[in-house]
Amino acid sequence: MLRFHHIVRVSLFASKASTFPLTSVSLSTSIPKRTTFALRSQMTSFSSSSSSSSSKLLFRQLFEKESSTYTYLLADASHPDKPALLIDPVDRTVDRDLSLIQELGLKLVYAMNTHVHADHVTGTGLIKSKVPGVKSIISKASGATADLFVEPGDKVHFGDLFLEVRATPGHTLGCVTYVTGDASDQPQPRMAFTGDALLIRGCGRTDFQGGSSEQLYKSVHSQIFTLPKDTFIYPAHDYKGFSVSTVGEEMQYNPRLTKDEETFKNIMANLNLSYPKMIDVAVPANLVCGVQSK
Amino acid sequence: MLRFHHIVRVSLFASKASTFPLTSVSLSTSIPKRTTFALRSQMTSFSSSSSSSSSKLLFRQLFEKESSTYTYLLADASHPDKPALLIDPVDRTVDRDLSLIQELGLKLVYAMNTHVHADHVTGTGLIKSKVPGVKSIISKASGATADLFVEPGDKVHFGDLFLEVRATPGHTLGCVTYVTGDASDQPQPRMAFTGDALLIRGCGRTDFQGGSSEQLYKSVHSQIFTLPKDTFIYPAHDYKGFSVSTVGEEMQYNPRLTKDEETFKNIMANLNLSYPKMIDVAVPANLVCGVQSK
Repeated sequence: MLRFHHIVRVSLFASKASTFPLTSVSLSTSIPKRTTFALRSQMTSFSSSSSSSSSKLLFRQLFEKESSTYTYLLADASHPDKPALLIDPVDRTVDRDLSLIQELGLKLVYAMNTHVHADHVTGTGLIKSKVPGVKSIISKASGATADLFVEPGDKVHFGDLFLEVRATPGHTLGCVTYVTGDASDQPQPRMAFTGDALLIRGCGRTDFQGGSSEQLYKSVHSQIFTLPKDTFIYPAHDYKGFSVSTVGEEMQYNPRLTKDEETFKNIMANLNLSYPKMIDVAVPANLVCGVQSK
Repeated sequence: MLRFHHIVRVSLFASKASTFPLTSVSLSTSIPKRTTFALRSQMTSFSSSSSSSSSKLLFRQLFEKESSTYTYLLADASHPDKPALLIDPVDRTVDRDLSLIQELGLKLVYAMNTHVHADHVTGTGLIKSKVPGVKSIISKASGATADLFVEPGDKVHFGDLFLEVRATPGHTLGCVTYVTGDASDQPQPRMAFTGDALLIRGCGRTDFQGGSSEQLYKSVHSQIFTLPKDTFIYPAHDYKGFSVSTVGEEMQYNPRLTKDEETFKNIMANLNLSYPKMIDVAVPANLVCGVQSK
């Protein structure tokens, strides 16, 4: 009855058919079984055209290798205008991102940042110069300039979809997390774009730009860990090749944020990280959303 | 009526409320609108627990930076045993992958390769030594050794989910593409793990290991481009930071495979690529699925 791990030869294709032994495989393994909420994570869609929702999220995760930065493209593909937004674009990959948007037939309306990045120059300024009409967005608390400022509780609409803005300071004073909406016509599971507040099995450093480990601990616990456990976590960086996590996984396995607050603060105070090589270029540029003064 | 790109301030969170101007944004853009099938690509799940399917695919894309290789973790999270498989694991990231599998409470049953890789050593041998019971899988046509050999038309079951095996030779003689099943209880849209046969806006080279540009052209057109256009393409590598594409996108925008066969063969014959630095180590190791002889 080991149906779940056998190989069946069928003749679906025009190829030579042959007999094939059903191999009985031992189920013993050194990995213990655990039943956790994390099991429900990162499920692909089982929806069909009979879905009750008229909106469909087109979603792409894009990587910039030099700074290990993730940029996210979201669009409402069911809306006639196909409105799209980019979260945390990088200046050096703007042409790649705009080409993809063009090929997918999308209309870019927002280029937004989770915070004032210290490790790369945002692509928002360059995008604005290349695509007239695109508006840059950042949090009001960031102190940066942009076309539009968001505050906690704001909703950023694109077509029939929207992102909620949650304040998650601690890595920097103005960090926000963008979360897909909590409604039946919005993506399920929800998706949280956490910037550097919560990384997969990690978090952003807290030793510059108004950073505070006490504040970061509170932000993650009050604004991210209160989301449904199957909410996908999409961070601004990953250095180990992970692409996604879930709230449930991070609540159970994050080596820093599963600790009590005092332990967390001690961990963060003793990271002994070097000064970011890009900070003196990136922060001034990013305070104007990448738009250099004339 | 520009509802699709405005920001609305609501007081969902315990934060200071303030008025916020609804900004009227120009819709003009230098990017032309196109209506293509690609618009429906990479949609996130809108399914809910009311889905008619009892199976749920847990899916993770994992990256190995040195060789720019993607490894894929798939599991049936709804099955009591949570059976899982890895496609194209890399030796140097085996510990990362097994830790994740352990944290997610999965039972790894298969470690499989799309082909005999020339650019990295497969993790399948190392995984077998660390997790007793795991079976290695590769195509019979590859000429490599493994616990189980697949041929075109085979189905690899894990729980109530399965992958179909399609022969896609041309990069190497034994290349296969694994495709999620074509049934109402299988993931929608379908997902194709193409190895090096079809890359995002590219394809694998054809100048060694029994490679043939003529064969690759036929493989992609007969075995991949005949899948539904919204089928996700998950390749074994990406060098530009893309994570996924669709059949429809590649049929429209792949710079090589949108050409006629003669042009394609000319392109492939004139790539002037250097000898792969890992090939003399990787191929002998991978011919035994990473298991070194004693």
